[in-house]
Amino acid sequence: MITLTSDFGLKDPYVAEMKGVILTINPNATIIDISHDVEKFNIRLGAFILASAAPYFPQGTVHLVVVDPSVGTDRRAILVHTEQGFFVGPDNGVLMLAAKNQEIEHIYELTNTKFMLPQVSNTFHGRDIFAPMAAYVDKCKKVWEFGPEITNVVMPEFASVKASNEKLIGEILYIDDFGNIITNISQKEIRQTKTVNVKLHKVSLNVAFGKTYAQTKSREAIALIGSHGFLEVALNQASAAKKFHAMAGDKIEVTPA
Amino acid sequence: MITLTSDFGLKDPYVAEMKGVILTINPNATIIDISHDVEKFNIRLGAFILASAAPYFPQGTVHLVVVDPSVGTDRRAILVHTEQGFFVGPDNGVLMLAAKNQEIEHIYELTNTKFMLPQVSNTFHGRDIFAPMAAYVDKCKKVWEFGPEITNVVMPEFASVKASNEKLIGEILYIDDFGNIITNISQKEIRQTKTVNVKLHKVSLNVAFGKTYAQTKSREAIALIGSHGFLEVALNQASAAKKFHAMAGDKIEVTPA
Amino acid sequence: MITLTSDFGLKDPYVAEMKGVILTINPNATIIDISHDVEKFNIRLGAFILASAAPYFPQGTVHLVVVDPSVGTDRRAILVHTEQGFFVGPDNGVLMLAAKNQEIEHIYELTNTKFMLPQVSNTFHGRDIFAPMAAYVDKCKKVWEFGPEITNVVMPEFASVKASNEKLIGEILYIDDFGNIITNISQKEIRQTKTVNVKLHKVSLNVAFGKTYAQTKSREAIALIGSHGFLEVALNQASAAKKFHAMAGDKIEVTPA
Repeated sequence: MITLTSDFGLKDPYVAEMKGVILTINPNATIIDISHDVEKFNIRLGAFILASAAPYFPQGTVHLVVVDPSVGTDRRAILVHTEQGFFVGPDNGVLMLAAKNQEIEHIYELTNTKFMLPQVSNTFHGRDIFAPMAAYVDKCKKVWEFGPEITNVVMPEFASVKASNEKLIGEILYIDDFGNIITNISQKEIRQTKTVNVKLHKVSLNVAFGKTYAQTKSREAIALIGSHGFLEVALNQASAAKKFHAMAGDKIEVTPA
Repeated sequence: MITLTSDFGLKDPYVAEMKGVILTINPNATIIDISHDVEKFNIRLGAFILASAAPYFPQGTVHLVVVDPSVGTDRRAILVHTEQGFFVGPDNGVLMLAAKNQEIEHIYELTNTKFMLPQVSNTFHGRDIFAPMAAYVDKCKKVWEFGPEITNVVMPEFASVKASNEKLIGEILYIDDFGNIITNISQKEIRQTKTVNVKLHKVSLNVAFGKTYAQTKSREAIALIGSHGFLEVALNQASAAKKFHAMAGDKIEVTPA
Repeated sequence: MITLTSDFGLKDPYVAEMKGVILTINPNATIIDISHDVEKFNIRLGAFILASAAPYFPQGTVHLVVVDPSVGTDRRAILVHTEQGFFVGPDNGVLMLAAKNQEIEHIYELTNTKFMLPQVSNTFHGRDIFAPMAAYVDKCKKVWEFGPEITNVVMPEFASVKASNEKLIGEILYIDDFGNIITNISQKEIRQTKTVNVKLHKVSLNVAFGKTYAQTKSREAIALIGSHGFLEVALNQASAAKKFHAMAGDKIEVTPA
């Protein structure tokens, strides 16, 4: 099984070209689209969408991601092998939020041209490098043949939460349509307490750590693990992002209180 | 085979999460999207789109539908078993227009947690209840194990046409891009006569019951069975909805004339 | 394997109905969407998107295309059998750009009602004729049973490049988001020289024939074979279409210089 995530949209033939390449190499592949409407070049958003969906896929799934503003430069192409599956894409951090939630086992730089299209363009590595690599990973799993093992990949701020004592320092991944503030602090990383202290910009407030938005009074703040598996800060029936002037990329600190 | 219909859109990872859940349980499932661009919370529109597409799918297809404004309340989750297949979704009427066109055999309330995800969220039953249920229906078909048989499901106005003598009292399902008025009166329910009388608001008019829009004079009204399988009232080269001030949800009466 | 290209969009159930028809006839078909967001009735754009994607699909793929402004008139339904696969759709030229790049072997008019739905509507041949035909082609490949062989199909200007001595006379297929001018002159048809002369409207200029946009000075013109496999005229970091007042459909002449 191979999933696809990109910022290509569905109007142009790019996604179909990648699927054609995959199915030519590996006619039995099951291909599932995660999303192709990631905002153009928005690595953080691509990483968030991938990290939300990846846990629901079967063991051994290959996740192919193309949000790749630096295509054609010397940024590397990588394969991350985790306990649950494989991630193929550019070394710009887009894979790492999802991958590190699955326990990373090995990372390889994709250099073996045997597993690329014969002609590699400067502009479309999704089709010419990542799609064939993903097809071969799904087909044969001999990932060590694809290139040298590496360790020093790009690890963006949004893919790592700093912990000191009980304080977690994370980042806002996404503001959803309701104005809920979705952080990069995952279910695994935070201990469920009754109340947490949240620091955002110069505001510091204690909020209940609950289960559902409706559990608190109207327009009152609550922290909870949302359906994406990440810690959210929300207001019941109002926009937390508006109230706290929060934006994707902002730092956020959370401590038991 | 499993079809998916929802109001989730394709930008967010929700649809992919449902597919991941299905394929984890049932790796051989063939999944086909009907539409994920149903207008948010528009049950009638979801029902119409499903009812248009369902007849073209093979015997035994499982149709999973998530247009679910009351998720998290005590509205029930149901499975409708028809002569041609299965419908899984919320008990809010969205399944019933399509289901009743296929002869309903049994309806079950989905209560057996064995066929749900271990953790059921309050906000995303599509992924946590409906997707696994659909996957198991497609896999094992033992539908009686999923919960108790019930009979008193929500049957919205738009899913039932009243007949008295030769008069049919229905509802407008949808106004298409051309302004054609699509009713909920299906091919099976209406007898093909030469002319029909149509009553809509305070207007009553006799129109030809024909085969194609072009069969009548320019800007003249015609009734016909459209490509969705429902009775339509149209103007040749003009908007019938505009002329008759018709909207989805309006009552409409049709009698042979 | 069957690919789908249309101008139906993904909101309405039309594409799903075609897939249901295909899978009823041929449950093992793998169906891949190329695009359903072709601009309504834009045959040239549909042809361009199909021709970009088709080369990446496996030998024997069936490409089903529905961009069909003349549905319901007497335009013919055709099947083009090439060295690499099959193209099914209306005889309006939409298939021919892709097909002629694969060496056409036979063309058939689709007239055998045995391979259509029992009821053929006037408005939706995609579902009633093309989808079942594509399903049967994929299933049995006995293409000669579908109707009489023909030779005089509609061959639009955009599907043929005129060559006289070394001069190629083509047409602009598409202006992309960057303002790059994409012509219908394919990789196969043009000889790679160091410089080419391009004539467009009343402008005639010599430009380098290179490999990448960045290879020339800022705002300077370059010709290259783009990732779609066609000759493009571009400016480095500026819109060539704007500078040269170029539009899809315009004639363009290219000569070695």
